[in-house]
Amino acid sequence: MNKSGKSSVKGRHKTDISYSVSRIGEFGLIERILGKFSIGNRRSVLVGPGDDAAVIAAGKGRPLVLTTDMLVEGTHFRLEWSCPEALGFKAVTANLSDIAAMGGAPVGIVVSLGVPASVPIKVIDMLYLGISNALSRSGGELLGGDTVRSERITVCVAAVGNLAGDRPLLRSGARKGDKVCVTGSLGCAEMGLVLLKRYFPRQRGSRRSAILSWARRGIGDFQSRIPREIRRDGYACILKHLMPAPRMREAQLLARQGVRTPSSMMDVSDGLSSDLSQLARASSVGIEVFEDRIPIHPSAVRTAGHLGISAARAAISSGEEYELLLTVPPSRLKNLSRTMKQAGATPLAVIGEVTGAKGITYLIHPDGRRSRLTHAGFKHF
Amino acid sequence: MNKSGKSSVKGRHKTDISYSVSRIGEFGLIERILGKFSIGNRRSVLVGPGDDAAVIAAGKGRPLVLTTDMLVEGTHFRLEWSCPEALGFKAVTANLSDIAAMGGAPVGIVVSLGVPASVPIKVIDMLYLGISNALSRSGGELLGGDTVRSERITVCVAAVGNLAGDRPLLRSGARKGDKVCVTGSLGCAEMGLVLLKRYFPRQRGSRRSAILSWARRGIGDFQSRIPREIRRDGYACILKHLMPAPRMREAQLLARQGVRTPSSMMDVSDGLSSDLSQLARASSVGIEVFEDRIPIHPSAVRTAGHLGISAARAAISSGEEYELLLTVPPSRLKNLSRTMKQAGATPLAVIGEVTGAKGITYLIHPDGRRSRLTHAGFKHF
Repeated sequence: MNKSGKSSVKGRHKTDISYSVSRIGEFGLIERILGKFSIGNRRSVLVGPGDDAAVIAAGKGRPLVLTTDMLVEGTHFRLEWSCPEALGFKAVTANLSDIAAMGGAPVGIVVSLGVPASVPIKVIDMLYLGISNALSRSGGELLGGDTVRSERITVCVAAVGNLAGDRPLLRSGARKGDKVCVTGSLGCAEMGLVLLKRYFPRQRGSRRSAILSWARRGIGDFQSRIPREIRRDGYACILKHLMPAPRMREAQLLARQGVRTPSSMMDVSDGLSSDLSQLARASSVGIEVFEDRIPIHPSAVRTAGHLGISAARAAISSGEEYELLLTVPPSRLKNLSRTMKQAGATPLAVIGEVTGAKGITYLIHPDGRRSRLTHAGFKHF
Repeated sequence: MNKSGKSSVKGRHKTDISYSVSRIGEFGLIERILGKFSIGNRRSVLVGPGDDAAVIAAGKGRPLVLTTDMLVEGTHFRLEWSCPEALGFKAVTANLSDIAAMGGAPVGIVVSLGVPASVPIKVIDMLYLGISNALSRSGGELLGGDTVRSERITVCVAAVGNLAGDRPLLRSGARKGDKVCVTGSLGCAEMGLVLLKRYFPRQRGSRRSAILSWARRGIGDFQSRIPREIRRDGYACILKHLMPAPRMREAQLLARQGVRTPSSMMDVSDGLSSDLSQLARASSVGIEVFEDRIPIHPSAVRTAGHLGISAARAAISSGEEYELLLTVPPSRLKNLSRTMKQAGATPLAVIGEVTGAKGITYLIHPDGRRSRLTHAGFKHF
């Protein structure tokens, strides 16, 4: 993203109606929208747009965290792949992961659901079963919603939570010298998508049959079509892609560690490559990440090996992982790791370091070469 | 809606995948969804699903009000009629009116926007101009959002607010003997839609040209095609349909009046007929409303007269009016009306009375005949 280039394009075309959204992309669109609002006029808005979620003061109560995410059929999911239960689960996860990334604990969600009138009720039942399961697992209640008719299934969730600690964990707090860490391991979500594309090719015109078929069988059906050698690993990857869960427990533990521990945090939703560069920009720092320190899930490694794909590349670009990406002052790292271990939380992997090169993110390969990382996640426009 | 009939249908078909959403309707679907959740387990959730908005405790701070509404192209609006500015404005109004109806004051909104990549940026600019104007008018800030690709323009807003008074104004507080009141006057929204249908017939295949055309001209263009005799009144009706505003000021004034004043409140979004019957059900009371006491906007009366339509019928079925419907103990009515007048707020019209006939709502015609009112608003499924 070249800022100056984007600005000149913006100026030149601002009244040209043939100039479409696809020309400025999602991030350009967001900047353009926010440029038109007077943000942060109210003292009650502690964090406005631009981070994982907004934070609102609540008098003497704990500040509130608010976020929204929309999943649209054809853009975010295909009915041949996403069973309705997984769809409901993932819609909740996308939102609760944003609450987690701010250091929040969920209170509840509202769900706006758009569905064609022809959709079987069983499908709606399964979708809300997924929503219910995700809430049971990560916390929060269904608080309300809206149900409307829509040609394409559209699930829009907004989630509200409380800060678990004394302050929100922002993207903008990283400082030179901090260590860059990630929870858990990466790669499965991307490998799950690769498997679905390879072994479950799109059947044109099969939307209704896909819906009916999901209403009959469960998510386990995928196993039968994955080659035997990687059936177990492949299924784990597909499950991670279809039904990821937020790191709610780890987030709340991290939120209670005190000053600059962590110094910044966000969730891995667009892919590590894109998310690292967003964190670097928000903090006005540089980041260097070592390829061979990025934790890759064993199932992703074995699946990638079987398919002849680079597991490291998959792990770096894999979106919707919903792991936490954070920076920690080096002096606090040992203590923090021990605390996480004692609490039985997923361990942190140290993958790199914060540098002074403002906004510039490098991936250091095992042979010492450096690649510049940019927004390389899924492009909406 | 026959409750026992619906239950038997529910039982019989619950595993039949050919049984679609259109068979149980929107209200049946909502009941079915809520039946699957354990609602109200958390003490922090003061009001769960089923009212205009949810209410959440915020420690020692004022409780929070949360709601969501989704507008989908083809279901809620057509691009030939709704200019993007009006669409943004209306999406905010639908949500802030729910906040108002609970006796809340807005803090802010999050906006999930789905648009095709081919949409001109000018259209997005206009849409957010409408959002910005609605927020400037009624209060609240843009707190965040999500922008995604979608075949049909979809605007999903979630709004958060604080209670303005000590308690939420619920649908369920009406008691026998209370007076039924409505703010402002009704009918314009429905007459605006009738005019659009009559004088601006749908042009098939013109989606892109409709978008481009809106990007060029403004909402004032409608005036030129309305017959001269009703141009001014007709345009007022179309404006009310396209860009309604919530009764934010009146709601906050009402929320500060103390015990049972009002005893119940909701907004007129599905149409007075449907909303009265929802209020009666929620309060387990009956309602009798006098047709000749329902305040009809003069522009709606004149437009209906010109078109040979019953203005009273239009006023009773008119959805998306966003007026407030409330019940008040008779002993408090005089004081309340004086308070509203002194504050320069829109006056209340007393349109009827709460009876003991549980859940049954009657419209009393000028000749003394009685019609049963039911859910007769827009049917989503």
